[in-house]
Amino acid sequence: MSTQPLLVDGDWRLPLQLLGAFRAENPMTGEPIGPAYPLCGTADVEAALSAAAAAAEALAATPPEHIAAFLEAYAAGIEADAEALVELAHAETALPKQPRLAAVELPRTTNQLRLAAKAVRSYAWTQPVIDTAAGLRAHRAPLSKPVLVFGPNNFPFAFNAIAGSDFASAIAARNPVIAKAHPSHPATSERLAQIAFAALKQTGLPPASVQLLYHFDYGVGARLAGDARLGAIGFTGSRAGGLALKAAADAAGIPAYVELSSVNPVFLLPGALAERGVALAQEFFASCTMGSGQFCTNPGVVIVPQGADGDAFVVAATAHFASAAPSVLFSRGVLEHLQKGVATLRDAGAAVLVGGSVGEPGFRYAPTLLSVDADTFLRAPQALQTEAFGPVSLLVRVRDVAQMAQVAQVFEGNLTGTLYSANDGSDDAAWPVVAHALRPRVGRLIGNRMPTGVAVSAAMNHGGPYPSTGHPGFTAVGMPAAITRFTALHCYDHVPEEQLPHELRDRNPDGIARLIDGVWRTDDLEPEAPR
Amino acid sequence: MSTQPLLVDGDWRLPLQLLGAFRAENPMTGEPIGPAYPLCGTADVEAALSAAAAAAEALAATPPEHIAAFLEAYAAGIEADAEALVELAHAETALPKQPRLAAVELPRTTNQLRLAAKAVRSYAWTQPVIDTAAGLRAHRAPLSKPVLVFGPNNFPFAFNAIAGSDFASAIAARNPVIAKAHPSHPATSERLAQIAFAALKQTGLPPASVQLLYHFDYGVGARLAGDARLGAIGFTGSRAGGLALKAAADAAGIPAYVELSSVNPVFLLPGALAERGVALAQEFFASCTMGSGQFCTNPGVVIVPQGADGDAFVVAATAHFASAAPSVLFSRGVLEHLQKGVATLRDAGAAVLVGGSVGEPGFRYAPTLLSVDADTFLRAPQALQTEAFGPVSLLVRVRDVAQMAQVAQVFEGNLTGTLYSANDGSDDAAWPVVAHALRPRVGRLIGNRMPTGVAVSAAMNHGGPYPSTGHPGFTAVGMPAAITRFTALHCYDHVPEEQLPHELRDRNPDGIARLIDGVWRTDDLEPEAPR
Repeated sequence: MSTQPLLVDGDWRLPLQLLGAFRAENPMTGEPIGPAYPLCGTADVEAALSAAAAAAEALAATPPEHIAAFLEAYAAGIEADAEALVELAHAETALPKQPRLAAVELPRTTNQLRLAAKAVRSYAWTQPVIDTAAGLRAHRAPLSKPVLVFGPNNFPFAFNAIAGSDFASAIAARNPVIAKAHPSHPATSERLAQIAFAALKQTGLPPASVQLLYHFDYGVGARLAGDARLGAIGFTGSRAGGLALKAAADAAGIPAYVELSSVNPVFLLPGALAERGVALAQEFFASCTMGSGQFCTNPGVVIVPQGADGDAFVVAATAHFASAAPSVLFSRGVLEHLQKGVATLRDAGAAVLVGGSVGEPGFRYAPTLLSVDADTFLRAPQALQTEAFGPVSLLVRVRDVAQMAQVAQVFEGNLTGTLYSANDGSDDAAWPVVAHALRPRVGRLIGNRMPTGVAVSAAMNHGGPYPSTGHPGFTAVGMPAAITRFTALHCYDHVPEEQLPHELRDRNPDGIARLIDGVWRTDDLEPEAPR
Repeated sequence: MSTQPLLVDGDWRLPLQLLGAFRAENPMTGEPIGPAYPLCGTADVEAALSAAAAAAEALAATPPEHIAAFLEAYAAGIEADAEALVELAHAETALPKQPRLAAVELPRTTNQLRLAAKAVRSYAWTQPVIDTAAGLRAHRAPLSKPVLVFGPNNFPFAFNAIAGSDFASAIAARNPVIAKAHPSHPATSERLAQIAFAALKQTGLPPASVQLLYHFDYGVGARLAGDARLGAIGFTGSRAGGLALKAAADAAGIPAYVELSSVNPVFLLPGALAERGVALAQEFFASCTMGSGQFCTNPGVVIVPQGADGDAFVVAATAHFASAAPSVLFSRGVLEHLQKGVATLRDAGAAVLVGGSVGEPGFRYAPTLLSVDADTFLRAPQALQTEAFGPVSLLVRVRDVAQMAQVAQVFEGNLTGTLYSANDGSDDAAWPVVAHALRPRVGRLIGNRMPTGVAVSAAMNHGGPYPSTGHPGFTAVGMPAAITRFTALHCYDHVPEEQLPHELRDRNPDGIARLIDGVWRTDDLEPEAPR
């Protein structure tokens, strides 16, 4: 069996232990494409982990300027190779080249790398705190251990294990990354890794700072996730896979930041529906079917009042869905999972309004709307919150605003929750009734726009209560907040000035923002009496 | 069986399910003291959890001013009752009334409650972030679920489940607390709960915001810790107990902040030893035996160079330990655990220099020094890092600074690590060699002072890498940082201004520090064009 090489310990090399091989498939046709990639075993995972662990202290001691230079060189390298990357990603995912891959996702990825570089240069992620009276100084520091990143199927660039937010965050905090690519886009991942490795050599980071594995089986993954030499895990993917890795990591005291699943409820308040229901139907349809609906923030449940305005929305939305050709999904696995999800919703009492069938060739599924009344939803909230990952949404018809709040109250933790309200203020009283119930159950509360589209911003929260993620306090997107996941809190207690890290010294030539005795300042600290 | 009542759902009431009773013991004599307290069962835990869960949304919606008023009324109530509290705590723990309980720990506890109130008033813990271009605003918010707090044996006030840092932090973030007292000081906990409850009634918080249970068995505790209605757990105590609770919580996606164990290595650099070795021996002895050595930050391992200066330190330290009477420990359980710890150290090759024996009456153990050479330590680092909770320390004799760094490198995660260096600069080259190895393995790096003594400061880290705690990114002490453990990250995406929480609105009449477009500011935000 001949396969593409792994990137391990500064070298592109064939697996030590080749347990199998796989090829990508063209989702449009279902045909295999590109070269064979290795399913590797324990020996390769061990080689990557040892190399990363050995590199961790050197990377932690690398000047921030070199880290930033790497992130920027990598961004530039991606841009220079954009055309080839977009071709590969399109072939492996069937996502449109324009605008999605070329104009949206690739620029988002390079922007993210550059924002990480900016956070490195500004030291913003280190959050320096100084208490002069107590002689204490604290900041966030590298874990000094490797971070294992699992990329999902749905963002070949922006969440790729070797290029996305988790990657940029872990590297910004000066931790080596072991990237586990998603097996549905291996060639895209390989090409990104080549660019990353070139940038790494150019900027002189330790060679094992960036490594790439393509695939390993569950047992190998769980063993790796529970290895005490790891510092943290970043995972985006399915709930079952993420929870298995989290369980292994938890048992070893390793923080696992897992982003799992979300149905992103959207509440259409009565005034909004009366005012612009037909326009909302179009907006909803576009969001639900964009990228074949394969977004963590896809609007999977829409809460629609009964009555004429609600009915008009449903009629308009149904027409949009009916007019659309089957959507191409990433893989046979996604298709099968989606079919199961729809079956679960139907079994729990939801009726298919439109769609509900597979298409051909390749992996296709018709954009699908289901509907259920709120009483049924409230009787089987668990089953009716099943994530149907794809161009599928469930409409929940409610009697009134009070029942909207009831429905809001039974949602599990979600990444987002959305309220649409009237421009004329007629929903101003309804808003807090629903928002009060929804707010603690979602990471991001959205007003009058669909949940798809996650801005890379310091004020973003792409996270949420369990089980949308494993911890309600962290975001996977947005610099510098996403970086803090991969840091340790370090305090210096009466440590001599000359032994302090740069950002905690008295002099502050870079104008780093520091919380000094309760006030954010960017100036020097007056030297104290000798400590 | 007649026992003291529980505080559940706004009422002092007898357990629904009384599975047993226990009394405190006077550690000086081993005799039972005070009334009987209940070991309760599932029905009581369920009652407390339901009540707390029902109160959580109301508490989350309580104006911060009321929360701060409660914390301050509670602090004032503790001060007004200080004499009685100190008597009770002394009787139950044998800790000295002066200075420890009356002059140090009680003021620290009230200070902590007031600092939490200050963080509530300043909104510092909410960390508001605004991105005007993206239309996004984020802050930290209540979990809107109860927090379960387990207090340890060793701080009857400052870490008490009903009064300590976890309690103050969880309440400051507007989450109800279910306090699980430590069974070695039930009367102190009961009296604190009475004061807390009076303050609660006075300031009008929901009655179930503060509840007290005294004791339950392992199965009941694990069931509670894994109940999805919980928002988080704060635990300080033994490694075995904390890991069992963490495992239950992890499986349910509940963040468990556990503070487990630490040996707090202290490195005496050669210059410091030459300069002031005999004074350091006195300083070390005082720190190791204060509070009978029952501190999470007790200096449990001291790394001492071989040679004349090191020998002189050992001789002086040994003399101090030999001159001291046996220390009174909290309980028979602590004594037995300590004996086991010392036996493990001996079995692994450590020799007892002084002490190593129990005393009478009650629960007493002689201040104890053990010693081992570094080669032996490096061969059995796991066993020789066994925490011996009490007035016990292990000296590790090293050949040179290089071997000091080797020893530093094999430590597990610890709360603290300390370096003593010469005032004349002769250790300036040795410092980074040892500090580089030690830094990633400890939460707080300390210069030239013993690790006991944890300042309540914004720049404190009372936390550290696993297994000293369950997560390297959080501190259990220090406001506002300790509060953030019990919060969720909430983002508002294009939410209408009038529906935003106070600290995220355009107008900022309270001068809250907010990170706006990358700059910390305390002024108003210019209203944008209508969103």
